[in-house]
Amino acid sequence: MTYTTPPALLADRFKTLRYDEEQGAVVVLNRRTYPFQTEFVTLRTVEEVARAIEDMTVQGGPPLAYVAGLGLAMAARDLEASTTRQAVYLEQVAKRLLATRPTADDLNHLIPAALAVAHEALREGREPFQPTLDFVNSEIERGNTVSRRCGQHAARLLSDGDQILTHCIAGAALCWMLWTAKEQGKQVTLVGCETRPYFQGARLTAASAQEMGIPFKLITDGMSAHLMSEGKLDKFICAADRITLDGHITNKIGTLQHAIAAHHFGKPFYVLGYDGPDPQTATGRDIPIEWRKPDEIFYAKGEDGTVRTAIHGIEGYYPAFDITPPHLISTIVTDKGIFAPHAIGEYRQMGDAAG
Amino acid sequence: MTYTTPPALLADRFKTLRYDEEQGAVVVLNRRTYPFQTEFVTLRTVEEVARAIEDMTVQGGPPLAYVAGLGLAMAARDLEASTTRQAVYLEQVAKRLLATRPTADDLNHLIPAALAVAHEALREGREPFQPTLDFVNSEIERGNTVSRRCGQHAARLLSDGDQILTHCIAGAALCWMLWTAKEQGKQVTLVGCETRPYFQGARLTAASAQEMGIPFKLITDGMSAHLMSEGKLDKFICAADRITLDGHITNKIGTLQHAIAAHHFGKPFYVLGYDGPDPQTATGRDIPIEWRKPDEIFYAKGEDGTVRTAIHGIEGYYPAFDITPPHLISTIVTDKGIFAPHAIGEYRQMGDAAG
Repeated sequence: MTYTTPPALLADRFKTLRYDEEQGAVVVLNRRTYPFQTEFVTLRTVEEVARAIEDMTVQGGPPLAYVAGLGLAMAARDLEASTTRQAVYLEQVAKRLLATRPTADDLNHLIPAALAVAHEALREGREPFQPTLDFVNSEIERGNTVSRRCGQHAARLLSDGDQILTHCIAGAALCWMLWTAKEQGKQVTLVGCETRPYFQGARLTAASAQEMGIPFKLITDGMSAHLMSEGKLDKFICAADRITLDGHITNKIGTLQHAIAAHHFGKPFYVLGYDGPDPQTATGRDIPIEWRKPDEIFYAKGEDGTVRTAIHGIEGYYPAFDITPPHLISTIVTDKGIFAPHAIGEYRQMGDAAG
Repeated sequence: MTYTTPPALLADRFKTLRYDEEQGAVVVLNRRTYPFQTEFVTLRTVEEVARAIEDMTVQGGPPLAYVAGLGLAMAARDLEASTTRQAVYLEQVAKRLLATRPTADDLNHLIPAALAVAHEALREGREPFQPTLDFVNSEIERGNTVSRRCGQHAARLLSDGDQILTHCIAGAALCWMLWTAKEQGKQVTLVGCETRPYFQGARLTAASAQEMGIPFKLITDGMSAHLMSEGKLDKFICAADRITLDGHITNKIGTLQHAIAAHHFGKPFYVLGYDGPDPQTATGRDIPIEWRKPDEIFYAKGEDGTVRTAIHGIEGYYPAFDITPPHLISTIVTDKGIFAPHAIGEYRQMGDAAG
């Protein structure tokens, strides 16, 4: 059997989020419950879109940015008559969407760009909806291509027999990496951390591996160092929600612990760096880390419902991301190829890699 | 208010496990559900005792050893007439109990010693039950004293304002450490990892802190490195299930990751080392690490029941413990005082510390 894309739902963003013409709404896969339920949620207002991002119905830097962009297009569809008011209203919408989640940079790039497309149409007296929607769809298309190229480059770094640790969900790029390696005849096993508190590894990453026929082993978030010490993990590979110009990366909380352990045991740590660094973020301390409500770590949501796992009357900390410095990273793989972390700032000067 | 012991249920083993004369059975706190339910389980046969240890109804190196010892006493109560058969039967019982869980060394010390007491009684024509029971109870009493002394020594290492990371449950010694520091006027905050898959930190450790009025913050198992990088953790302190003569320690899976992170960020790691190293275990590779069924990491048990958190049809790894080498440990605190990890082998040559 030959596939043109990896046979995993999460490998193609158009399969998990889109603007639905008939319903006139944004339709997204609920990533909080998938794959226990394959439930698509219909978002009819900008506020519904914003809340779906905040409550993690949509999650992952690029997917949440696309959904926000579709939300902005939806707002551009329902404008009042006055052009001045329209421009101001769309700015407010953009501000609301930008305020949903601070850490990943994709949102910060896509929303201003989509807003500019809408504003340009308004200035020229054209209706702004279709050009804004077309722009966001072209960004989803571009994102799929970026993920494919990133994953294909990363596959070069894998060896037959590798046991690869990953954390949280690395999405389309991880699928492409694993699928490309498989097509190259490399047998690799994916070892996924369950990723508390939302279990993305036990659900989303596990499901992608299973769909593609990649052997998968689940572990809890505290097991990576021991498995490295036992020679059971060869490489640590994960995504990044933002990359700085000097090679820091931020990713789901827990990543830093695995990176430090990998460094300690001499195992390489590869970052699936998608379309490179954020030109507006110089270094690690410039990344705004999202602190979510501690309540969210007092529960476990599973196939059969939600249970309270912590006693009552206590407090907690829930930083949702951590920051790994460049000296703990072996390489950052992008759509343009494989970069030394300290040289990732050169990404923008490089031409596009061949398809 | 003055307490002679810390006001936490888990600070005194006699409150959570005992031989009940009236029922003629071993009665233990169910540590899988406490404190959501304060349920005491009645174990009437050696097999019930063994299974309660295997399924973690009783857990923690010393507590499970005490319960096993009480199980052996119970077997000594119900012997047939022939003395030869009695001795052989008790050896089989001891073998069954020793086979329950391999990693912690307390069981390996207590069961042969209790068996020797029973055998001696049989040889001398006395009934073996009462002396065996008395011996196990004296060991529980000794364990309480060891924990108190260990915790009191450890309190010297705490400073006012400390935020202290712990992993899993450090039991009576941790309670004594926190309580002693509190009585000395040191305000410390305990930051507890929830400890997947059984959430001992979110339940048992959190409950002990709450009972004693020690401020407590819950985190997931992947957050320690980030909090260290942010200056939010000053010290890492946990128990050990076994200590080797050259200063390796084994403890609940996840400990090694925190120890490596603490080393990376220059934070001290103190081990509550109870009554010192196992004289029969030379070094880390001699510790038998228990691998439990991977199924156990596919679920989360909470206040309201159990949910499946992983998709179906996958595999997993579940090493229940990991091993931390001495170069990552700052000190090992025992009932006899504070040891450099590499000098812990001198423990046996030291006299008892003052009470």
